[in-house]
Amino acid sequence: MAEHTIKAFDEEIDTLRGLIAEMGGRAEAAIEKAMLALQRHDRELAAQVVAEDKRIDAIEAEVEKLVIQIIALRAPMANDLRDVIAALKIVAVVERIGDYAKNIAKRVPIIAVNKRTLEPISLLPSMGQVAGEMVQDALNAFAARDPDLAVAVVERDTVVDDFYNSVFRTLVTYMVENPKTISECAHLLFVAKNIERIGDQATNVAEMVYYAATGNSLPERERGPSEIEE
Amino acid sequence: MAEHTIKAFDEEIDTLRGLIAEMGGRAEAAIEKAMLALQRHDRELAAQVVAEDKRIDAIEAEVEKLVIQIIALRAPMANDLRDVIAALKIVAVVERIGDYAKNIAKRVPIIAVNKRTLEPISLLPSMGQVAGEMVQDALNAFAARDPDLAVAVVERDTVVDDFYNSVFRTLVTYMVENPKTISECAHLLFVAKNIERIGDQATNVAEMVYYAATGNSLPERERGPSEIEE
Repeated sequence: MAEHTIKAFDEEIDTLRGLIAEMGGRAEAAIEKAMLALQRHDRELAAQVVAEDKRIDAIEAEVEKLVIQIIALRAPMANDLRDVIAALKIVAVVERIGDYAKNIAKRVPIIAVNKRTLEPISLLPSMGQVAGEMVQDALNAFAARDPDLAVAVVERDTVVDDFYNSVFRTLVTYMVENPKTISECAHLLFVAKNIERIGDQATNVAEMVYYAATGNSLPERERGPSEIEE
Repeated sequence: MAEHTIKAFDEEIDTLRGLIAEMGGRAEAAIEKAMLALQRHDRELAAQVVAEDKRIDAIEAEVEKLVIQIIALRAPMANDLRDVIAALKIVAVVERIGDYAKNIAKRVPIIAVNKRTLEPISLLPSMGQVAGEMVQDALNAFAARDPDLAVAVVERDTVVDDFYNSVFRTLVTYMVENPKTISECAHLLFVAKNIERIGDQATNVAEMVYYAATGNSLPERERGPSEIEE
């Protein structure tokens, strides 16, 4: 590439990375707010999470447009091309994380309907926090191309999976003992599942980062043992 | 592009379309087999669905490799570039559909554990059939670039959503009346949710096809009203 083309390319890559960082920050904030809304039965905060998800979707669209522009104008070679395609995959994953947070927020008004305090809710914020930290670290690993941090993210997914299995059992027991709460607890099951899936998505990002940084895949592990063990 | 380059490009696009068609066929088959395994408590068939999902994942990886190769070697222009990037997005969606079918299959041994016949199971095959047909039609719409068929797919998603809401209510009632089945019914809730999400993914494909064929977006609709109404 000519020197001015390289400069333009580098600037575009910086813009791309900035958009991904903004998107990641918004997804993390969405998880935190959704969990807070759930704990506090705060419908307004929940509605805010739902509304703010539109910006996350818009950033994904912006990244796609920019990637197509970069490829069309700069014709990046091998590694650079793989990097911009990887950006597309990362934003698709972050968009899904945003959707999971939105889904949790959408359930807040239904779960809060009877103003009952469902004890199993108390388990969810810690689970949400671990998943949120995984998202943050996965995106930090991406920004710094840090394979060690990526491995740490992947390893932490078992914490979220164990949380999920525990929440699942607790909720089932609670439903048996409090049949009047079954409908709300069913929604809480989905909330727990959404958090567990956020952990899986952070793991996906971390695996992509590890592969991009080292050229090797991490050893195969079964995602979401919860699917079987719960 | 020079004539031989155009020919090579066309052949590569054909290969790409062939891989997507194979992947779609496999995802449809996976949905059908998973539903059959669920109805018949057939663990072997369920294990087969889980095993065969690896081929779906492998095709996605093949498509990604081919797309990067096409871009690097052929430097496709505007519309062609958008088409190959769209292929990446479509295979990501079909891969998710395969995962949902796999998740359903993974729950078969847990749901079948007590050899109990849970009446709400009887609702699921029809729901699965509608979702499977949506996937088939969405991929046919993609192959034929048919915006009308794409619209028909999007419209049918409300059928799946209504099914889901009905299954949700039926399961909650059943759990209240049969507390011993709560754990298995919780798994059935997730099965119903997975089918509902398959309908959403087929809708995603149909929306992309519509946009690619007409240059316009379909009017915004809230995916999965089930998130609120169930």
